[in-house]
Amino acid sequence: MLRIALDAMGSDRAPEPEVEGAVCAVRELDLAIALVGPEALLREHVRRRSADARIEIVHATEVIAPDEPVAQALRKKRDSTIHVGLRLVHQGYAQAFVSAGNTGVIMAAAKMILKTLGAIDRPALAAVLPTFAGGRAVLIDVGANAECRPLHLVQFAIMGDIYARLILGIASPRIGLVSIGEEEAKGNELTREAYKHLERSSLHFIGNVEGQNIYMGDVDVIVCDGFTGNVILKTSEGVFDLLRAGLQQELRRTLPTRLGAWLARRAFERFRQRFDYFESGGAPLLGVRQVCLICHGRSDSRAIKNAIRIAKELVERRAPEQIEREIVRVQEADGERIEAKS
Amino acid sequence: MLRIALDAMGSDRAPEPEVEGAVCAVRELDLAIALVGPEALLREHVRRRSADARIEIVHATEVIAPDEPVAQALRKKRDSTIHVGLRLVHQGYAQAFVSAGNTGVIMAAAKMILKTLGAIDRPALAAVLPTFAGGRAVLIDVGANAECRPLHLVQFAIMGDIYARLILGIASPRIGLVSIGEEEAKGNELTREAYKHLERSSLHFIGNVEGQNIYMGDVDVIVCDGFTGNVILKTSEGVFDLLRAGLQQELRRTLPTRLGAWLARRAFERFRQRFDYFESGGAPLLGVRQVCLICHGRSDSRAIKNAIRIAKELVERRAPEQIEREIVRVQEADGERIEAKS
Repeated sequence: MLRIALDAMGSDRAPEPEVEGAVCAVRELDLAIALVGPEALLREHVRRRSADARIEIVHATEVIAPDEPVAQALRKKRDSTIHVGLRLVHQGYAQAFVSAGNTGVIMAAAKMILKTLGAIDRPALAAVLPTFAGGRAVLIDVGANAECRPLHLVQFAIMGDIYARLILGIASPRIGLVSIGEEEAKGNELTREAYKHLERSSLHFIGNVEGQNIYMGDVDVIVCDGFTGNVILKTSEGVFDLLRAGLQQELRRTLPTRLGAWLARRAFERFRQRFDYFESGGAPLLGVRQVCLICHGRSDSRAIKNAIRIAKELVERRAPEQIEREIVRVQEADGERIEAKS
Repeated sequence: MLRIALDAMGSDRAPEPEVEGAVCAVRELDLAIALVGPEALLREHVRRRSADARIEIVHATEVIAPDEPVAQALRKKRDSTIHVGLRLVHQGYAQAFVSAGNTGVIMAAAKMILKTLGAIDRPALAAVLPTFAGGRAVLIDVGANAECRPLHLVQFAIMGDIYARLILGIASPRIGLVSIGEEEAKGNELTREAYKHLERSSLHFIGNVEGQNIYMGDVDVIVCDGFTGNVILKTSEGVFDLLRAGLQQELRRTLPTRLGAWLARRAFERFRQRFDYFESGGAPLLGVRQVCLICHGRSDSRAIKNAIRIAKELVERRAPEQIEREIVRVQEADGERIEAKS
């Protein structure tokens, strides 16, 4: 049976969301969970919720804080839940790692322990965004690589393409490049150079996309460096929070608006379900040799369970092998070695 | 009397919003407007709305499309509304230029015709954002400079600081640097280097800010390169549109939600007024020798009138002179020549 290693101490309210998410996951999905964290604490939490033998506890003594500096945590906390969980995957005991912990540490530890695929220079973090058309789009990279070369972006495009095919089920994903104007000549040095490579590639490249088009549903894979992607993701989250809180304030102000809000409550619920995606799943680190998913620190049990489900799908569909194969295929089709190393 | 040169042909629905905005401006504010565009067309539009002698038409034969390539428009359309309007300011006939036209062309033409201040290397575009706390924050640069050096960001910080003092009335603006983590070591080469300079400067620098903090109200001036700033602005606009349209869809779905929405309509109105800022004013191009404001292409007459009001304030408070003086003051205080030229 497929087994997922789950960092039990990653989220802001750990370990409740993780334990609850694990309980739901084994109930709904056909898999086993290795819950990684302090044994005594977790045993207590699990006992209260489930006696399912498919949830197993793997002891780890150290917990890394969300804001702990990466280098220090990597060096000094080798028995952290992140290290132990990733080692379970590397050793083949589990097939994927899921964590809502410190993103920087998870990325660095995953590259160190799981290793990068041979054909990939830089693993990248992919996020799934909702679109107005009711669909989904992949944004890659959302924070693994603050500094990029043009050919890194081409590799991100290929990985995003595979992810959109495997997980979103899009047959021929439309690839767009984040820039600040639609013409080829707009943008900065990095995007202008990446544009040329993407245009020559065998990918379904549709050109530059601007911030306001990201959510329109006209593009399936949105490619950018990790600095820009992280800014897009965090800004979207900020605007969403701002608007939600602002609307709530206005609705509470008078009796008629409060009554109206109550009458319309189902619409607000559906709205929340539709767009409250920031906490709703995991972002896979694509380009490493095994499956690794990073969840939002604010994750609730539903988000953890969703991330476990996506991790399972990525394992079953052999995402890492597919990425390796696709990079080679595109390189051959394009008669060009996609390599940014130097 | 202070006179504003207004590009009558800039917005998506020109010249209606411009003519209407000009009529409201002369009625409410103590100023005159030089409306720049095809004389016959504008005469007809103005005659229908007002006989106020403070609205004057200045003929310009050419109109630049919103998506027209910058270099071509600059070279070939020297009698465009943008060129003519800026020349009116340069020649001293008007004191500020306002346009909702092609941003790239306005910026390039303004640098060419109005010229850059002696102490500034690169003019930058500043946008005003609403914050949750009910206040306002300045985001600079939102698109004038896709490629920046660290000291350009320091100059943007100084210009943003002045703008926040003059227009938002903030006594000691808190300056933040857009990055992808709060610690100094996070971000890319540009932000890490800029961080060091800002920390040493006499500005009230509070460190890095991430996307989700932009709208919290904890920072008054948000500094970044023009690529990042443009992505932030456009993404915010995209999320706002997505959420507004998505909520409308959900509210229209059933009778109770439609009734609820009708009862709560005042809350939605106040909400719209509070956050519908993307079309609500103008972004000044700071660092040129005279006042130049760029409005959103979607601007309505209210947005045009607001931009005219801000242009007037910037002229009356001598923003360009203040920026020149402040750059020199900070340089002296910091014992360092803030210069990025090379």
